[in-house]
Amino acid sequence: VRAEGGVMNVSQLGEFGLIRRIAAQLPRYRDDVRAAVGDDVAVLGLDPGTCALATCDIQVEGVHFWRESITPQQLGRRAVAVNLSDIAAKGGTPEHLLISLALPADLEVSWVESLYVGLAEEASHYGVDIVGGNLSRTAGPIVVDVFLMGKASVEEVLLRSGARPGDVVLVTGWLGEAAAGLSLLKSGTGSVAEEWKHLLEAYLVPTPRVSEGRAIAATGRATAMVDLSDGLSSDVGHICEQSWVGVRLFAERLPVSDEVRHVTEAIGREGWELALEGGEDYELCLTVPGGAEEEVAAQVRERTGTQLTCVGEILKQEAGRWVVLPDGSEVPLRPLGWNHFATDGPPAAE
Amino acid sequence: VRAEGGVMNVSQLGEFGLIRRIAAQLPRYRDDVRAAVGDDVAVLGLDPGTCALATCDIQVEGVHFWRESITPQQLGRRAVAVNLSDIAAKGGTPEHLLISLALPADLEVSWVESLYVGLAEEASHYGVDIVGGNLSRTAGPIVVDVFLMGKASVEEVLLRSGARPGDVVLVTGWLGEAAAGLSLLKSGTGSVAEEWKHLLEAYLVPTPRVSEGRAIAATGRATAMVDLSDGLSSDVGHICEQSWVGVRLFAERLPVSDEVRHVTEAIGREGWELALEGGEDYELCLTVPGGAEEEVAAQVRERTGTQLTCVGEILKQEAGRWVVLPDGSEVPLRPLGWNHFATDGPPAAE
Repeated sequence: VRAEGGVMNVSQLGEFGLIRRIAAQLPRYRDDVRAAVGDDVAVLGLDPGTCALATCDIQVEGVHFWRESITPQQLGRRAVAVNLSDIAAKGGTPEHLLISLALPADLEVSWVESLYVGLAEEASHYGVDIVGGNLSRTAGPIVVDVFLMGKASVEEVLLRSGARPGDVVLVTGWLGEAAAGLSLLKSGTGSVAEEWKHLLEAYLVPTPRVSEGRAIAATGRATAMVDLSDGLSSDVGHICEQSWVGVRLFAERLPVSDEVRHVTEAIGREGWELALEGGEDYELCLTVPGGAEEEVAAQVRERTGTQLTCVGEILKQEAGRWVVLPDGSEVPLRPLGWNHFATDGPPAAE
Repeated sequence: VRAEGGVMNVSQLGEFGLIRRIAAQLPRYRDDVRAAVGDDVAVLGLDPGTCALATCDIQVEGVHFWRESITPQQLGRRAVAVNLSDIAAKGGTPEHLLISLALPADLEVSWVESLYVGLAEEASHYGVDIVGGNLSRTAGPIVVDVFLMGKASVEEVLLRSGARPGDVVLVTGWLGEAAAGLSLLKSGTGSVAEEWKHLLEAYLVPTPRVSEGRAIAATGRATAMVDLSDGLSSDVGHICEQSWVGVRLFAERLPVSDEVRHVTEAIGREGWELALEGGEDYELCLTVPGGAEEEVAAQVRERTGTQLTCVGEILKQEAGRWVVLPDGSEVPLRPLGWNHFATDGPPAAE
């Protein structure tokens, strides 16, 4: 992709293209770095037995949130939750966070205080201390940037690189909930029925699967894991890339709730489409050796109450990436999730 | 400060007022947290013998930099340098950093690549690995947010809280260089004489005093330390607040170079004014027991080649905070440095 005249801008290259370019020009890491640029979490083997984990995830007004459709308290919880989800995907335990804010000078102090109520609520709930940060002025949109540190045992930490042909693909919970919530939000919040309110909540304040991530790591059977921030079709691709494998997903097996089916009917789409392509569910997607899925699912359900669903299988890399549609046809899996520089990302709420 | 109608915005409350409000509403920390919100660096006593350090510092276009007056490579170096300075002020060793970027979709890829050249250059120079980060779109100004982690020995780590009456106040290097550089930049870069170019460089790409911070900590004599990001008149106040002490600075003792004197003459100000009030020098300000200053200065000069200058003395808290002007008069010390929500912050370059 190259614009006329040879000048390329970041939207033409896209988020992942830009990350690849950047990674290629960085110096080599020291031996203690096990995952870094290209992953959502840096895994630093600082001590024998324990890895340090570090991640950051930003909320930019007009891109990730709109002041009209989220309260500052919800935004605070969301900003922490999306970072917790990254640590969860490593099977790690979150510990300390820093908060970097860029705020317009005319923003009300009460808004910032409510934001902190949400930040502190979500952090406390997961045993995380807010230990610092930075405040800056901006003439632009509000920026809430969270930096989260945690740890994991070297033996249990899960990377994206361990999936092998013959493994199966599992996901936690339900998919497409956040995308259905966003679709409701865009259609006008006034008309949302009571039984659909939890879809809005799933989009606005996702639940990070921290206990589930720890429980999955503790089984010792998972070979790779990632959280579903961009959408399954996109995020499973991270496992494929870093594990050098292919994948086959089955649309009919994707866990879709009745509420999501109702919402998707109303907008003329299929439930599995939102489950496959909708981002921001912050569920976990993992691989385990074929045959181990029931044992792993049982252990995780027992420790956390959360279901795991088998949605696909890992293939050899040369077999490619596929999705079997409900009519039995098999089509190439395309990463249609959230790309932070693509023009087809979620538009602003009305 | 309260606006009509009882609604207050962040510029009325100011950066430090906002930080105090936020700190008051956060839950208590666990025992392993030694410095946190209200400090620039979180000091986490994770292991016996070693503290983990974590800090973040943001560069917002139109607030901290202007695309017309800094190259992306310089900006990359600057964004890392200001974070290194925070770790230096703890006497720590920087180790790993994450970079969070919010970029307009129409930004040229080559600009981002040059930014990374600068980020990687500065990080490598100080032995720091870039281990991850995040890329986001924004409809607003460019945001470069750096999160830096490091470590320090528990015995040597320097906080802001250890200064005692009878201590003296020392600073590294020269003061007012960055403010003089900014003043040159605002007057138009075309007219800058060769011998003043290093002032521009001091403003655009400050030199973090990492070796000096380590050398100071290694003397075992320093009682408190802070880096000069907001300006001496403001930053020495952080030591006063957290150590519960007063201070007396001597304007005539402030280390001001001939170049800064020339620049300040041209704009009708005194060199010591820029040294006292100008921000972004990123020198270190420390306290040592009275009588130890020559020994500490000699050790630091021997290890790093950098001079330390004695610029004041620590008083009891009730004695207040003062500055003795060159004419011998003593006036209250006011924090006139950079306040990120004040309207009197540095205006945009022409």
